[in-house]
Amino acid sequence: MFKAAVIGASGYSGEELLRILSKHPGFSIEMVTSRQHAGKTLGEVFPKFRGLDLNFVEPDTAAVAESADVAFLALPHGLAAEYAVPLRKAGLKVIDISADFRIKDTALYEKYYKTAHPAPELLGEAVYGLPELHRSELKGAELVACPGCYPTSVILPLAPLLRAGVVSSEGIVVCSSSGVTGAGRKVAEMYIFPERAESFMAYAPTGHRHVPEMEMELSAAAGAETAITFVPHLVPMRRGINSTIVAVPGPNFAESAVSEALNEAYDDEPFVQVLPCGSTAETKHVETTNTCEIGHAFDEHSGKIVITSAIDNLTKGASGQAVQCANIVFGLDETAGL
Amino acid sequence: MFKAAVIGASGYSGEELLRILSKHPGFSIEMVTSRQHAGKTLGEVFPKFRGLDLNFVEPDTAAVAESADVAFLALPHGLAAEYAVPLRKAGLKVIDISADFRIKDTALYEKYYKTAHPAPELLGEAVYGLPELHRSELKGAELVACPGCYPTSVILPLAPLLRAGVVSSEGIVVCSSSGVTGAGRKVAEMYIFPERAESFMAYAPTGHRHVPEMEMELSAAAGAETAITFVPHLVPMRRGINSTIVAVPGPNFAESAVSEALNEAYDDEPFVQVLPCGSTAETKHVETTNTCEIGHAFDEHSGKIVITSAIDNLTKGASGQAVQCANIVFGLDETAGL
Amino acid sequence: MFKAAVIGASGYSGEELLRILSKHPGFSIEMVTSRQHAGKTLGEVFPKFRGLDLNFVEPDTAAVAESADVAFLALPHGLAAEYAVPLRKAGLKVIDISADFRIKDTALYEKYYKTAHPAPELLGEAVYGLPELHRSELKGAELVACPGCYPTSVILPLAPLLRAGVVSSEGIVVCSSSGVTGAGRKVAEMYIFPERAESFMAYAPTGHRHVPEMEMELSAAAGAETAITFVPHLVPMRRGINSTIVAVPGPNFAESAVSEALNEAYDDEPFVQVLPCGSTAETKHVETTNTCEIGHAFDEHSGKIVITSAIDNLTKGASGQAVQCANIVFGLDETAGL
Amino acid sequence: MFKAAVIGASGYSGEELLRILSKHPGFSIEMVTSRQHAGKTLGEVFPKFRGLDLNFVEPDTAAVAESADVAFLALPHGLAAEYAVPLRKAGLKVIDISADFRIKDTALYEKYYKTAHPAPELLGEAVYGLPELHRSELKGAELVACPGCYPTSVILPLAPLLRAGVVSSEGIVVCSSSGVTGAGRKVAEMYIFPERAESFMAYAPTGHRHVPEMEMELSAAAGAETAITFVPHLVPMRRGINSTIVAVPGPNFAESAVSEALNEAYDDEPFVQVLPCGSTAETKHVETTNTCEIGHAFDEHSGKIVITSAIDNLTKGASGQAVQCANIVFGLDETAGL
Repeated sequence: MFKAAVIGASGYSGEELLRILSKHPGFSIEMVTSRQHAGKTLGEVFPKFRGLDLNFVEPDTAAVAESADVAFLALPHGLAAEYAVPLRKAGLKVIDISADFRIKDTALYEKYYKTAHPAPELLGEAVYGLPELHRSELKGAELVACPGCYPTSVILPLAPLLRAGVVSSEGIVVCSSSGVTGAGRKVAEMYIFPERAESFMAYAPTGHRHVPEMEMELSAAAGAETAITFVPHLVPMRRGINSTIVAVPGPNFAESAVSEALNEAYDDEPFVQVLPCGSTAETKHVETTNTCEIGHAFDEHSGKIVITSAIDNLTKGASGQAVQCANIVFGLDETAGL
Repeated sequence: MFKAAVIGASGYSGEELLRILSKHPGFSIEMVTSRQHAGKTLGEVFPKFRGLDLNFVEPDTAAVAESADVAFLALPHGLAAEYAVPLRKAGLKVIDISADFRIKDTALYEKYYKTAHPAPELLGEAVYGLPELHRSELKGAELVACPGCYPTSVILPLAPLLRAGVVSSEGIVVCSSSGVTGAGRKVAEMYIFPERAESFMAYAPTGHRHVPEMEMELSAAAGAETAITFVPHLVPMRRGINSTIVAVPGPNFAESAVSEALNEAYDDEPFVQVLPCGSTAETKHVETTNTCEIGHAFDEHSGKIVITSAIDNLTKGASGQAVQCANIVFGLDETAGL
Repeated sequence: MFKAAVIGASGYSGEELLRILSKHPGFSIEMVTSRQHAGKTLGEVFPKFRGLDLNFVEPDTAAVAESADVAFLALPHGLAAEYAVPLRKAGLKVIDISADFRIKDTALYEKYYKTAHPAPELLGEAVYGLPELHRSELKGAELVACPGCYPTSVILPLAPLLRAGVVSSEGIVVCSSSGVTGAGRKVAEMYIFPERAESFMAYAPTGHRHVPEMEMELSAAAGAETAITFVPHLVPMRRGINSTIVAVPGPNFAESAVSEALNEAYDDEPFVQVLPCGSTAETKHVETTNTCEIGHAFDEHSGKIVITSAIDNLTKGASGQAVQCANIVFGLDETAGL
Repeated sequence: MFKAAVIGASGYSGEELLRILSKHPGFSIEMVTSRQHAGKTLGEVFPKFRGLDLNFVEPDTAAVAESADVAFLALPHGLAAEYAVPLRKAGLKVIDISADFRIKDTALYEKYYKTAHPAPELLGEAVYGLPELHRSELKGAELVACPGCYPTSVILPLAPLLRAGVVSSEGIVVCSSSGVTGAGRKVAEMYIFPERAESFMAYAPTGHRHVPEMEMELSAAAGAETAITFVPHLVPMRRGINSTIVAVPGPNFAESAVSEALNEAYDDEPFVQVLPCGSTAETKHVETTNTCEIGHAFDEHSGKIVITSAIDNLTKGASGQAVQCANIVFGLDETAGL
């Protein structure tokens, strides 16, 4: 059993990490930190976890370093890097769910996150934690930057299609729709029940922070600079992301090529499910699972490829993927605990 | 007071018609028909309408013709035409909420609705009931074909932009998301509460029946054949449609041109609200209103125009618009009862 | 037209007041105050009200007194009394939606609200604003204390049954369930969408503040001290209250006596709907209406009377009832605008 | 590994059984039957279970008997008995989730289920599957009648209080509220999303079928005939039951006696969680768990005991409890797979 610490366990990603790790055959939860809840038992804060004999403690990196082999950071960006630095120094493996080490280009980080990168010295060793694309780099990695929720749902379906030239790197349009936990456990008027129930809206029509991350990976897959139009939406449900992607056929397009490229990429992947042509993904199918479901169709009428994908934003979009990465890092069965 | 009959009042559009007409200063509800509910009082079927002293009767066109000046058809396509023919013969004005008289091209109707057009002889007099675009034709019209819910949300924001050349007629991508009443009062497993709550999905990634209608109006506005990519989604809420439209700038594009064209078109329109640049529409803002809210932004990064619109699918998307049209047809104040 | 001011219009009751008053034939909205939103237009805060040409202003009692005949107070308890005092001095009619003037006994007020009564001198003229029970006192009243939402749903069905001796004043058990707007526009973690969706709970199993108000009215109806057990619950919906009341038969009980007493009391009431025996009330039936729907049944097996009632907590449970009272106070048609 | 067959796996209880058994260390799923879905893979019907290599087959009792040690019946009442008879004859253990073997008194069964008992010869060996009350009888039992969802939520909190004389057997009032899966996967107009969302109602104010079952167990605990008033409600959420119970103090009542009796009964129970006095249960806390959470308070004002309980209707209220029973029957760890 490897010893795990969950740093910043009061949010939804932290809660989901606890759900998964508490039943994991290869990791034991040794420490759970939260400034807000330090001193309380897990059960007091999350009644579902009353069975776990654990207390929240103040986040103290020295104490973490002593008790754990790996630290999962479920912290806001900026703060995550502050913890990553001493924990890495102390030799711990760090699995970061925040945005801090996803983007290699510090200028781009600064542009989108409006602050200088807090720990550029660690970017070199950070591996982008999308196992289906970076599995070999993840083996034995020291620092994993888990992808954002939207990027996971967008990169998985598009990367094989761009790589195969089935989809053009130009003209990609993405409409993603997320359940409200996507905003974190944020206490603000726009998130109270009466404001969100029975309503639907796009909310950041340009410049969403997940764009550079998506384009970094999509460009790598395409072998060409790839700029996308990305519009996120808020859905009156708790969990789940659907991404609907409309793309222009690429040089190697043929009607059968879409499913061929997707199936070839994902037939052996335990956490990606490619649907038959014409089917659409649905978030219900992947709720509380680590699966990404992918649907695709070709719109003869407009000549566009229509792709849909569904993930659970807290599982494959955050904590499930973090555990999948940790499994690889520590040489465990990749599906352990998932 | 003009005398109105509501034909097929057991569905959600019929219910919404009753809600609006029952408080309308210019129309009295003389007859409400429903095969399913004939013999019952309105209050038995819709407890909210207990105050209205009305009974459902069998739909008999002769009886309708005797008692009403205008018939609102809240029927499935195909059936609507069957009623429209004798009612028009009897000289009634007909406001049809179904799809039967929207598409002028019978071949296109047949392609999308998989059946021969049931009453092509009436297509000539049918006016497409989008007042903001067809107000003058609606004055005194005999037969109004009210637009579909999705088309209303897509045509209103795009038409002025295409007309002004601010948006290109090529490459338009539309992701629309609808509340569950958009499917009508359909009793099927996929629509029961436990299947729809907490889930989101695209559902007809190609070939939706509302596409020809949208393209007919968009092409007219653009002055050029316009083919769009349209993907509808199902949202766990009762009412409301959001359309997110991503478009390529047209020959007359400038950053300020989008809001200029929209404001010019809609500043004096009582039922269209253009938001400041950068804002997004939200379905909550228009719930049970006849308003279409329009947001817009320019994504410098990808060079695309992002437009969002929100309507209530049962009001501006169906019965509210039907009443707005009827107001024009009968020379009443266009906003009466709305 | 009488001139109305809405004091404290940023909460859900205030919003509902604006919805109703803006279409009211007998009241014009002259002033809308909100500390939080002073300086903004109504449309900026509530996009649905963009059509109303009104601005939020700071709540200044002198200015209110100059511009209005009547002030609707949609304020927290305590604060409401602070405004009521000068407004009454200035001669305005005051319709208070808060709890400040509901309970005549200041000791009881202090016990439940944990603070001395802020304006005992006004209690004498305050009329409890439940028109179905206090209509004659309301005519020309100067200060109206509108009932709480739960009390409205509990007193209306029970009062006639207690008065007729059909129900015993002993052993009444009430389980009420409210949509989330019942908590007001409260921004707290327990009210954010992911915490409330898909969950149901009782929340104040003893000592709810609405108990004294209910018992005051029920005791008066029974002609005997009446103590009830009241348990409120929170439902994942926006609006609506259901109260399920289990009562012991009283001295004049007979199976038919329940519906007789209810029908006799409410047959001519425009805003109370008594269902046939065996039916249950449903919140959907009264959404955004000023109606209280009442169901009843007799459980032979246990010998208890089971009563259900449904109201919209923001309409009949707050602002609709306030307007109903104001209509009576000013001698307008009681149903005007409702 | 014991071999399990799931008979009638197309409903919500069957789906939940598959979820639990598919990860169970002591049972393997050998057969899954469904008339409706015979011939399809599990993944076609329930995309979440794509990972399970299983097909739906026609329910053939001979085939079931050959392949399984235990049959879980997730069938409607009446039908369940039809399968139980031959399966018991073939020597299989039968865990029945339906109502067929819960009530020992066939006259009572007939009164509430409006049909003669389909297999009275099996009633003798049937054990009521509430492990916390019937654990010793369950060891090695041949036929288990799993309790209804409402009864589980009502009997667990009340039985120890009645047994201890802390609560009186007279005057018990229960208001239970269930998520919509409580109605099964029922396709009817009242269950479609637009009819259930944003609404709350009581639905069977007298005579609910779960009453005799509750009274059978409560009477046994009280050592006296116990008749309750039971009112079920429908909540716009998918899963979960809350029961709010108002009871009269019994002869051995003292304020501390409630928590003492509950804690004594349940301190060592893995699936019952007693909250501190004054707290209320919440369905969210037990979602997809086999836990029953119990809250309690004493209302000094009215002299009543207020108890709240929460379970997941599909887990502790049906399939989780079925597996808990099967664990006991087969001598496995009672918490295995739960």
